[in-house]
Amino acid sequence: MPQDTTPPLTPELYLEVQQFYAGHMHAVDSGDFETWAVGFTEDGVFVSNGFPEPLAGRAAIDAVTRKGAAARAERGATHRHVLTNLDLRPLTEHTVSARSYVLVVESVAGAGAALYASTLCEDRLVRQDGTWRVAERRVTRDDLPAVDSGDRR
Amino acid sequence: MPQDTTPPLTPELYLEVQQFYAGHMHAVDSGDFETWAVGFTEDGVFVSNGFPEPLAGRAAIDAVTRKGAAARAERGATHRHVLTNLDLRPLTEHTVSARSYVLVVESVAGAGAALYASTLCEDRLVRQDGTWRVAERRVTRDDLPAVDSGDRR
Amino acid sequence: MPQDTTPPLTPELYLEVQQFYAGHMHAVDSGDFETWAVGFTEDGVFVSNGFPEPLAGRAAIDAVTRKGAAARAERGATHRHVLTNLDLRPLTEHTVSARSYVLVVESVAGAGAALYASTLCEDRLVRQDGTWRVAERRVTRDDLPAVDSGDRR
Repeated sequence: MPQDTTPPLTPELYLEVQQFYAGHMHAVDSGDFETWAVGFTEDGVFVSNGFPEPLAGRAAIDAVTRKGAAARAERGATHRHVLTNLDLRPLTEHTVSARSYVLVVESVAGAGAALYASTLCEDRLVRQDGTWRVAERRVTRDDLPAVDSGDRR
Repeated sequence: MPQDTTPPLTPELYLEVQQFYAGHMHAVDSGDFETWAVGFTEDGVFVSNGFPEPLAGRAAIDAVTRKGAAARAERGATHRHVLTNLDLRPLTEHTVSARSYVLVVESVAGAGAALYASTLCEDRLVRQDGTWRVAERRVTRDDLPAVDSGDRR
Repeated sequence: MPQDTTPPLTPELYLEVQQFYAGHMHAVDSGDFETWAVGFTEDGVFVSNGFPEPLAGRAAIDAVTRKGAAARAERGATHRHVLTNLDLRPLTEHTVSARSYVLVVESVAGAGAALYASTLCEDRLVRQDGTWRVAERRVTRDDLPAVDSGDRR
């Protein structure tokens, strides 16, 4: 007997995801790259119109993240990933579609703060080992051309 | 026997309103004007010190919204309505007073992102047809003189 | 028999703290300094790398806050404390560790809005008289050198 198995969006689920994001963004902003990296599944994919090509797999995401952070450190800059307008849609018991706005704010020692980019972040999250992880992330920077889907149909 | 019928603020109610706003703001920012417009009641009022006069009714709000979006599109700009600091007060079973900060962030293709305006958003929301709608919105841009109430007492 | 008494993070608790912050930040931004001040415990401490020295006690916090607001008013500027990425960890039944990002947005009459500072806000909150109060606040502005802990070990 077929039935709709889409679970309801509960405050408990929303809170779990909200806490996941707060920890995830704080990790990357504070240089805790291990915590950031395990926030993606082993085979997680990160697509962005700010990247020359999609990042496939946790190791690739980790490498690019560390490279970016090293470049910022060299010029005395830090980033904050300010996440707002979080919109959740449970897909299954263990999968959630999450859409949010992420402002990237850059501060430079002695030179104040500025908006680095305004982005739309679309994630597919999965529950693994009692925590949430990003299986697929699509980030669209509002100031750059949208990603070409590659679909030529 | 008179009694206080103000319902408590529950996580379920907060979540409903939070999801409403996430969808409402995403709709206007992504050009889904139908969804944005039905986020107001048929006779909804939108007052702002950024408008020459109050907008009365969904149709008027819709028209002004589309006009603004067309002007932005012409100069290659997009807006994000970044909603934070949401403070809710239930008034009745079907009415909520909602106060939030809404940053309007503007991105221009090839020219980065900037703060367009910092605003205070004060809404009276009503539950209609199983969803929330704005019956009255008062937006105060922090960089413009406050709206004159028109009250000359 | 020893046991773990750390309470769970529930949606109810998260909501309480979220509403506390929304009211707390709105109070200081709108000039309701009494409400802002009682958001700290009588002996609350406010440390920031933006201050020459820690503020000890509600009275000291209140005085410095009013002085800052008066200086801003003189140059036609207002601030909004935009709080996001809230991460809570209950410590005891009546104590919570709260970490958030607080963007300070400045608007000047007739001159638009700008990011004034990007900060990390680390609070220890205590429940007192049925409400939450800040017992200890540590604010780190991202564009200034970190606070020296004073620890010379």
